[in-house]
Amino acid sequence: MKLLEERIREDGLVLPGNVLKVNSFLNHQIDPELMNTIGQEFAHLFRDNNITRILTVESSGIAPAIMTGLALHVPVLFARKTKSSTMNTSLFTADVYSYTKKVTNKISVDQKFLVQTDNVLIIDDFLANGQAVSGLLEICKQADAYVEGVGIVIEKAFQTGGKLLRDQGVRLESLARISSFEDGKVNFVGD
Amino acid sequence: MKLLEERIREDGLVLPGNVLKVNSFLNHQIDPELMNTIGQEFAHLFRDNNITRILTVESSGIAPAIMTGLALHVPVLFARKTKSSTMNTSLFTADVYSYTKKVTNKISVDQKFLVQTDNVLIIDDFLANGQAVSGLLEICKQADAYVEGVGIVIEKAFQTGGKLLRDQGVRLESLARISSFEDGKVNFVGD
Repeated sequence: MKLLEERIREDGLVLPGNVLKVNSFLNHQIDPELMNTIGQEFAHLFRDNNITRILTVESSGIAPAIMTGLALHVPVLFARKTKSSTMNTSLFTADVYSYTKKVTNKISVDQKFLVQTDNVLIIDDFLANGQAVSGLLEICKQADAYVEGVGIVIEKAFQTGGKLLRDQGVRLESLARISSFEDGKVNFVGD
Repeated sequence: MKLLEERIREDGLVLPGNVLKVNSFLNHQIDPELMNTIGQEFAHLFRDNNITRILTVESSGIAPAIMTGLALHVPVLFARKTKSSTMNTSLFTADVYSYTKKVTNKISVDQKFLVQTDNVLIIDDFLANGQAVSGLLEICKQADAYVEGVGIVIEKAFQTGGKLLRDQGVRLESLARISSFEDGKVNFVGD
């Protein structure tokens, strides 16, 4: 998605350790119009898949997920990283290790909202090592729900997450695929 | 907002301790179309206020905030409850005590995204004791930004948050105002 690549080039900051900071439009401050365009793009890519539910994880996945849900007219479910005080019912849970924060979070979803007849589209902001998406896939497996595919805003294609998912036969659609960082600049796959 | 009150009556669950569970459409599973309508309503209420930025706090505030930002064509900033690994710059911070979880969270915003010339609209999903909104007001004060008002999806009008804000002269717009819970049913102000 050209518009997104341009925005990453313009406003993204490359920090030491191959960290890309896009907090001016994606994961701290959010550009609602860009998110709306991203949601429409995911909806277009999965328009023939009879998606019944979007699944993401708090917090940065919510913005692209809700715009995708708006375009596809389906509910959006976000997995929680901490147990809510009102989550006293049965949960699907999975452990997600964060390489950047070096902690394991248990993510959870109320069993009421994910069922066997669901065709799920998983949406997240970043794909690096694939830990968050693997946790969401595990949750769908527990619900016996079918996963139609995964939509990612920014994939770090030089890390292992993309291969991990594709090797499992998961359909992965990433709107921007970063091949490398070089002297503070971002290179995309296909440049 | 009638549509919202009806949805709360239909799908909300009243739990012991005056807890209202609306996780089927607001804060776990999200109804994107309802959020879009809510965003348009907030945009309408604050259409003459030259809002330059929406401020909310993760995670449940993000959905109504981003739809308001979409309708007003302004960026949405969400305060973080945990320090992100890429948040190594200067921050505005405030302490927020949660009565339901009985913990104090430090919420923070990158100083880069909130400035003195901003006319801010604060959006959140719930108002009960007003702790989260007070934290967001404190952050705006640190930035010397002007707060045009506060938009709340569901106010528990029998708790102290509304009075706390109005007594400070803050313009508060709540789309649904709950006056009481009675035998598992929800009563609204003006019923």
